[in-house]
Amino acid sequence: MLGETGIGNLWHAFSKHSLDGQKDSLMRIDGLQYANWSEKIFRQMRKGNLDAVHVTIAYHENFRETVLNFERWNRWFETCPDLIMKGQSAADIDTARATGRTAIFFGLQNPSPIEDDIGLVEILHTLGARFMQLTYNNQSLLATGCYEDEDTGLTRMGKQVVREMNRVGLVVDMSHSADRSTIEAAELSDRPIAITHANPHAWHPARRNKSDAVLRAVTENGGMLGFSLYPHHLKDKSNCTLVSFCEMIARAADLYGPDHLGIGSDLCQDQPDSVVEWMRVGRWTKEIDYGEGSASEAGFPAMPDWFQDSRDFGNIETGLRATGLGDSEVAGIMGGNWFRFFAQNFKPRPM
Amino acid sequence: MLGETGIGNLWHAFSKHSLDGQKDSLMRIDGLQYANWSEKIFRQMRKGNLDAVHVTIAYHENFRETVLNFERWNRWFETCPDLIMKGQSAADIDTARATGRTAIFFGLQNPSPIEDDIGLVEILHTLGARFMQLTYNNQSLLATGCYEDEDTGLTRMGKQVVREMNRVGLVVDMSHSADRSTIEAAELSDRPIAITHANPHAWHPARRNKSDAVLRAVTENGGMLGFSLYPHHLKDKSNCTLVSFCEMIARAADLYGPDHLGIGSDLCQDQPDSVVEWMRVGRWTKEIDYGEGSASEAGFPAMPDWFQDSRDFGNIETGLRATGLGDSEVAGIMGGNWFRFFAQNFKPRPM
Repeated sequence: MLGETGIGNLWHAFSKHSLDGQKDSLMRIDGLQYANWSEKIFRQMRKGNLDAVHVTIAYHENFRETVLNFERWNRWFETCPDLIMKGQSAADIDTARATGRTAIFFGLQNPSPIEDDIGLVEILHTLGARFMQLTYNNQSLLATGCYEDEDTGLTRMGKQVVREMNRVGLVVDMSHSADRSTIEAAELSDRPIAITHANPHAWHPARRNKSDAVLRAVTENGGMLGFSLYPHHLKDKSNCTLVSFCEMIARAADLYGPDHLGIGSDLCQDQPDSVVEWMRVGRWTKEIDYGEGSASEAGFPAMPDWFQDSRDFGNIETGLRATGLGDSEVAGIMGGNWFRFFAQNFKPRPM
Repeated sequence: MLGETGIGNLWHAFSKHSLDGQKDSLMRIDGLQYANWSEKIFRQMRKGNLDAVHVTIAYHENFRETVLNFERWNRWFETCPDLIMKGQSAADIDTARATGRTAIFFGLQNPSPIEDDIGLVEILHTLGARFMQLTYNNQSLLATGCYEDEDTGLTRMGKQVVREMNRVGLVVDMSHSADRSTIEAAELSDRPIAITHANPHAWHPARRNKSDAVLRAVTENGGMLGFSLYPHHLKDKSNCTLVSFCEMIARAADLYGPDHLGIGSDLCQDQPDSVVEWMRVGRWTKEIDYGEGSASEAGFPAMPDWFQDSRDFGNIETGLRATGLGDSEVAGIMGGNWFRFFAQNFKPRPM
């Protein structure tokens, strides 16, 4: 004995089920992960309905070492063809969605893979790299990292490399860069740049989180901010609440526009502490550097209980809806904005 | 006062002019060149109406050195976009023809760029390599070269690498390999292989020219032979006549079928003798090796007067017609057969 209201509720329940369980759900894209990759993790990406993930393929590796990492990924694509596929353009995300897979896009967190050779920018793009950070915490050949005392902005080589990255379609990522360098990159680059994984400094004053001036420079030039779930970037760290995280996003949507925002979880799953140490000290020092941690918190902090891994992406979607953000704004932040950004920025500029 | 015969002659003259001067002419593909590349040489390719050229990008280079050669070519594509374009698939030849350019396809004359790492096969294919010789004169990690005393056929790694080349769409080229190795490769490979630049040993018994058994094994498995114009491969060397060269091709068409034949000029233009020496001795010996030359003929021999460079491709077409080969046979040998072979063998095998 269903009245109109009852039918309405059933319809609502059906739609919701359909949205959560089927691939007519919102597009979901993670703007940064670096896990100890395994079939288990790829299955979690599928359970979380992730259509695309930007994965880190180098921290401090030189070119030759980075090629070994591309090779490792080629083996994953060969052994798990039903779960993942190589992503090179936004159209590959459509293919991934249509075939129930996750498209994997490559990025470099340091310019070390180009060594001192601007010609390697195009070579790495040909191999599949789509993001490159100009610095990773320290001064690089290109710009200044966020842990240096002095920020001298883009170097002579940095300016040349940004132009070359613009030409071939390799996105400038300034997640680990210092403020002046980031603002100069946003202004010098004639294609939009990204901060793939960080949060506003005003919400949680971590050294890696970004000032209002930086976020304005990046977004006003068409760029993107991916919100990080690395506990050191979160207010109250591992105890950060979903409500606090999502309200921070809603506030950023007011300040910088909802079209410039996405998720960049910085998920670093199943990695031993030796890998965290490699990220922090590479080969540049013989001493221990704790990065955003400390001697008493040297290891990788616990993730918030509402975001343990890729399967929890739906919690963020639910949390964003609860803030009062509209359907199209939530759709953009969950993946639509990254999709548009990928579509506009990964191809070589026409000659 | 033109009678029917006069009109017929005019029509014939017009068609001929149109064929020679316009791009409705036969497709022309050169299956191997290694020049000291310059805008001058690219303009000569255009004058010769070459729609595609397979160029050598490594002789003895390791992986890292080969990447520098890809970089050099990226600069040529950037600086001469009206003359050349990167070729990766047969469809790129259609684009090149439609836009009045020559598509450049890359090949490796030695497996040195993959070092001891099978994962580099796919990496080099991604960068654009479409042919790889399993050996260059000497024993390699994969097979035996044509200058060794003993030919042990494909090595353990050689068998694995052929399978991987089949998977990704990197063509096995046995131009500089010994007979048993070549026949084993032709039989083991489940995609056709090529001898991109050599002639039948029966016509001129140079060490690099190929026995009947080798040519049968390659062509019966769907493979291709590209006829070489390197004087050491020619009967009477620099004095070889166009008639002799073209009659040799017509005889090969009878023996091996006209669909398996193309041109692979081995044109090595504007290179200093130091480069010829690099080809011959690389870093594998401290002594001088003269390859197909000798102490008294150490340098690069003079090309035949009817084939000085790419502009002379039309002479071969004229010479082939004069042998009595039919229009479709001539069209195949000038480029149509390479086009079909490229279309079938450069793409990864569907998973």
